[in-house]
Amino acid sequence: MTEAVNLSIPQLFDAVEAIFLRCGLTPQQAGAVARVITAGERDGCKSHGVYRIEGCLRTLKAGKVVPQARPELADDGSAVIRVDAGGGFSPAAFELGAPVLAERARAQGVAALVINSCVHFSALWPEVEVLTGQGCAAMAMCPSYATVAPAGGTKALLGTNPFAFGWPRPGRMPYVFDFATSVAARGEIELHRRAGTPLPEGWAIDAQGHPTTDPAAALGGAMLPFGGHKGSAISTMIELLAGAMIGDMTSPEALAFLGSDKLLPRHGELILAFSPERFASGLGDPFARAETLLDAIAGQGARLPSSRRFSARTRAEADGIVLTADEMAMLVRLRDQGLDAVQ
Amino acid sequence: MTEAVNLSIPQLFDAVEAIFLRCGLTPQQAGAVARVITAGERDGCKSHGVYRIEGCLRTLKAGKVVPQARPELADDGSAVIRVDAGGGFSPAAFELGAPVLAERARAQGVAALVINSCVHFSALWPEVEVLTGQGCAAMAMCPSYATVAPAGGTKALLGTNPFAFGWPRPGRMPYVFDFATSVAARGEIELHRRAGTPLPEGWAIDAQGHPTTDPAAALGGAMLPFGGHKGSAISTMIELLAGAMIGDMTSPEALAFLGSDKLLPRHGELILAFSPERFASGLGDPFARAETLLDAIAGQGARLPSSRRFSARTRAEADGIVLTADEMAMLVRLRDQGLDAVQ
Repeated sequence: MTEAVNLSIPQLFDAVEAIFLRCGLTPQQAGAVARVITAGERDGCKSHGVYRIEGCLRTLKAGKVVPQARPELADDGSAVIRVDAGGGFSPAAFELGAPVLAERARAQGVAALVINSCVHFSALWPEVEVLTGQGCAAMAMCPSYATVAPAGGTKALLGTNPFAFGWPRPGRMPYVFDFATSVAARGEIELHRRAGTPLPEGWAIDAQGHPTTDPAAALGGAMLPFGGHKGSAISTMIELLAGAMIGDMTSPEALAFLGSDKLLPRHGELILAFSPERFASGLGDPFARAETLLDAIAGQGARLPSSRRFSARTRAEADGIVLTADEMAMLVRLRDQGLDAVQ
Repeated sequence: MTEAVNLSIPQLFDAVEAIFLRCGLTPQQAGAVARVITAGERDGCKSHGVYRIEGCLRTLKAGKVVPQARPELADDGSAVIRVDAGGGFSPAAFELGAPVLAERARAQGVAALVINSCVHFSALWPEVEVLTGQGCAAMAMCPSYATVAPAGGTKALLGTNPFAFGWPRPGRMPYVFDFATSVAARGEIELHRRAGTPLPEGWAIDAQGHPTTDPAAALGGAMLPFGGHKGSAISTMIELLAGAMIGDMTSPEALAFLGSDKLLPRHGELILAFSPERFASGLGDPFARAETLLDAIAGQGARLPSSRRFSARTRAEADGIVLTADEMAMLVRLRDQGLDAVQ
């Protein structure tokens, strides 16, 4: 029996990277995937940590991701940079495009990175944080699978469509948020089902389109957007900008393409980067103005988004990351047996 | 006593324009302001129709808007175009910048229009619709006054910070939404106060930061953002991008500047425009893909945003706009007496 262990951040990265290399990913792909999974675990985001590895490998075993994909960058010198992920996981495509995006935002003021044909499993905050680390503000969004009904509707059509934003804070952790535009994550409904507890009102509708607090009925029906018609509108905007506009799949198209929501979705992603210096253009210091606002938010006791994550990061950097015996056993099993160990 | 009248859209425009000319606005300013007020009335948006005229004139009489301002465009060839509104109303500044923004989005894929030092009273949908009319997708946002507490906070700090988006639908009315990021508009709380009815839960907090359903306590306290911490995060993003980043006032700064929320706020605005053709880059038809999605939303009975507004527009174009006797009397009084008639 493997014991619970404490790993340093680089040790965890090496362990995760080794699994993906063993399963046939290129070093570029394996490193990029391992970086975001390690970041999730480091930040106490268990839902985007080592738990994700098996889902990635299941998608790989089903032949729905290209392990040897080499993302290709196309840059016509405009404010839009494209990376064709070639059916590989999204992180390698993002890592290829991000430095060009940041450089273009500094040159043009605003720029966009389009990622096409990627398989997505990562949170968006690691991407947004790469850009705040380059001094840019950034916005990121992507469709997912049709599991959310539009406000006033009766059937799943929109995805949980995450939306993330980051603002650089010189000398401090950035202002970052990243959330699903559904009122709750599908995993939260599953947790209620297992616990036998009813859902809060307003989370979901059943297969007939009626409001339900029964988790099983909700899983057979559709989730609802956050914030009623406003959240539904934002989710629709994400389908249009990061699906239709970039020539990639909307959430219903992604579901139809795979015929299942049990594997990771294939679609595109849109990231916008802004250079605050270029935008402010000498009219005051944008960073100082932002600090006044953010300090006033925190000063009245309202938690800034990501602050829990940043605290976990500080602890992990000092004390390492503790994995349970089960988690460690999974890493060892996947490293030793590769895709044979994947159900 | 003036009777209720039916005006054609151009007749209403002329009547509104005449008032602003009489009160000292330049033809450029008066025309632009009259266009958005007429559009509000035409679309059945009474809250942005002729009702707004007195608020504009009150701000003018208080010396807080520059009636003779000539907006100035600065274009360094990058993806960011700026218009300095010079302390005038926002619509003239927008009208100056919008064609350049659309042209730059077509050339660069994505572009931004920054408006600085404007006095704001307009909805954002008229601006977004100008850009969809040019074949661009568009996003618009601005701070307002500190009247909304951040989620988890106790005091007004954020504005009602509107967020709007538009997507062009060839041969059809565009997909457009425009909403406050507060759960309700201040005017709705005032209506509850007058009617003596309690507020729904979750709309507001009192001066001590406690949840309240008492409209008077809410007006002395703060409104809450829509969608809990997610809406609060979006509202904060608007402060950062369309306040701090563009070198213009955040909502607390705008309130401190005027010392009152009874006059129209002075601040800036950020508009992003996207060329779907440039973004799709030959990977399918972005407009066809969008129609499939939007038809599926409408097909399950979920109303698309702005559809009520577009129906009102069709009626107004066919049958004209009916103003009440009181509204007509106000237009006549303001035309004849100018600022002397303003309290």
